[in-house]
Amino acid sequence: MFSNVISKIQESKNIAILSHVMPDGDNIGSSLALYNVLHAMGKYVKYILDDDVPKIYKFLKGSEKVQKPEKEEKFDLVFVLDCGDRERLGKSAMYLEGATVVVIDHHISNKYFGDINIVNPKASATGELIYNLLVEMDYKLDIKAAECLYTAIVTDTGQFQYSNTTDITHNIAGELIKSGVVVADISNKVYQSNPKGKVLLIKEALESLEFFNNDTITCMALTQEQIKETGSVDSDTENLINFGRDIDSVEVAVFIKEITKEKVKASLRSKNRIDVCKIAAKFGGGGHIRASGCTIYGSVEEAKKLIINAVQQQINGGDK
Amino acid sequence: MFSNVISKIQESKNIAILSHVMPDGDNIGSSLALYNVLHAMGKYVKYILDDDVPKIYKFLKGSEKVQKPEKEEKFDLVFVLDCGDRERLGKSAMYLEGATVVVIDHHISNKYFGDINIVNPKASATGELIYNLLVEMDYKLDIKAAECLYTAIVTDTGQFQYSNTTDITHNIAGELIKSGVVVADISNKVYQSNPKGKVLLIKEALESLEFFNNDTITCMALTQEQIKETGSVDSDTENLINFGRDIDSVEVAVFIKEITKEKVKASLRSKNRIDVCKIAAKFGGGGHIRASGCTIYGSVEEAKKLIINAVQQQINGGDK
Repeated sequence: MFSNVISKIQESKNIAILSHVMPDGDNIGSSLALYNVLHAMGKYVKYILDDDVPKIYKFLKGSEKVQKPEKEEKFDLVFVLDCGDRERLGKSAMYLEGATVVVIDHHISNKYFGDINIVNPKASATGELIYNLLVEMDYKLDIKAAECLYTAIVTDTGQFQYSNTTDITHNIAGELIKSGVVVADISNKVYQSNPKGKVLLIKEALESLEFFNNDTITCMALTQEQIKETGSVDSDTENLINFGRDIDSVEVAVFIKEITKEKVKASLRSKNRIDVCKIAAKFGGGGHIRASGCTIYGSVEEAKKLIINAVQQQINGGDK
Repeated sequence: MFSNVISKIQESKNIAILSHVMPDGDNIGSSLALYNVLHAMGKYVKYILDDDVPKIYKFLKGSEKVQKPEKEEKFDLVFVLDCGDRERLGKSAMYLEGATVVVIDHHISNKYFGDINIVNPKASATGELIYNLLVEMDYKLDIKAAECLYTAIVTDTGQFQYSNTTDITHNIAGELIKSGVVVADISNKVYQSNPKGKVLLIKEALESLEFFNNDTITCMALTQEQIKETGSVDSDTENLINFGRDIDSVEVAVFIKEITKEKVKASLRSKNRIDVCKIAAKFGGGGHIRASGCTIYGSVEEAKKLIINAVQQQINGGDK
């Protein structure tokens, strides 16, 4: 599967690894694993990212070497990992020019914009594919590279709980543990290291929790002032909606985030039967049947009324 | 490893499966897996438990057949799963008499009180051992039994995040997925089905969150009134302390639960360096270096002062 890629690595001297803006665990973990391996092979290699490495991933080997796309530089070979299209590379896309581009990804929406494209939507994480590449290279993983790949996989599978988790995912996790990964150590660093502001934001979100329609709908809302006052950042609101969704009686959870005084972003999650994409579409948004979102022009209170009404209608009206 | 056990199963006609009081996912999952298999083999088999099966595990096949230890009955063979000593069996211990007792467990503290004892503290869950037994029996797992074993393992490893998770754990999880387990389905049932009261209790706990000693110590406290008013139960306070512990700056988290107006239970967790067992011991309690507890006679406020002082002393005094 990777024989072309392996020959390209052998032929190349200057290699860059790029990935998408707003990096996540899979992006960082799979890129750093490849970076560490190429570096150990004596290659001149750079891992270039538009954004900073999030604090919780800074324990991974090589994270201190990540560079910003500031300097013009030519590479023979550019890896683009975990990134479906050029636009998501941000400024780093400038390094594609003149290079052989190898895209390795697991997003079904990937646009195959490389010279070589290894895209496998059945892989739970790009980290799985880099693991396979290293196996095919006969590369013996050390603990540091294994930690990178384990972090890629554990984060992109939501601790092996999302539907993308397969028997292959588990087999690879087992092999990474055999290579030295200490599970509780990674878990401590990735999952037990919330910034204080995020926990204060969870508190604010729960204080706003409301139940509707016989507890089948929940709604939480946060203003920009609350995000600022708790000392948290916009991305700390991610996944807060799960507190509202993960209640036994709930079918639809709504989360409303104020963007400005007259504009909000609404997120919708459903559990078993309601197609929230249909609801989001009513407001010009979209997504998937279990997870969608939309932008509403109005105050938090106005948006809440509109959305809750629409959800209630769909739950009670049989309009599934 | 299980050849003795397998012969006993073949010889026996009346089989009981017992486990500890206050059942958890491993206890229920491993017992139901064995129950379903023995039942499918045409054995007369009963799974007897002192307590009710928790609601989140009622989707597992056979959970509706679990019986209370009400009727006197004799069994040839009694399995005791996931239970370190007879006392933890509660009233169900009455069925041990006159039977061949097979103990299968992964607790290091197991007292080997059976006629046959298969105790492996390296197994992440008793579910792993039952999986091995079924493999040795050449039993082809169906999805229903696989769901029971997967639930046993995912709960006892904290979603594959606790230090008991090994490469073998992951390999078994992979095999169970191959037998038909739909990961997201189990996750939805086990982890996305909180009672409403529990989420309201998280809110109350976070409202009580205080920071001390440059944010290295957190404290949360709940009264009996709050537990009642939120419609939650005492066991819903379990793990709430993690919200205080899982903050990057925090070394010690304290959780205080009022028992009566003049008596509280205090829980302590540390992350990297403080031995909280020493702190608990000052108040007549105990536990492990990273997780301990004690009972204090006094109001919530009085207990909070005492404990926070003791933690502060240990953090700052170098008395680790």
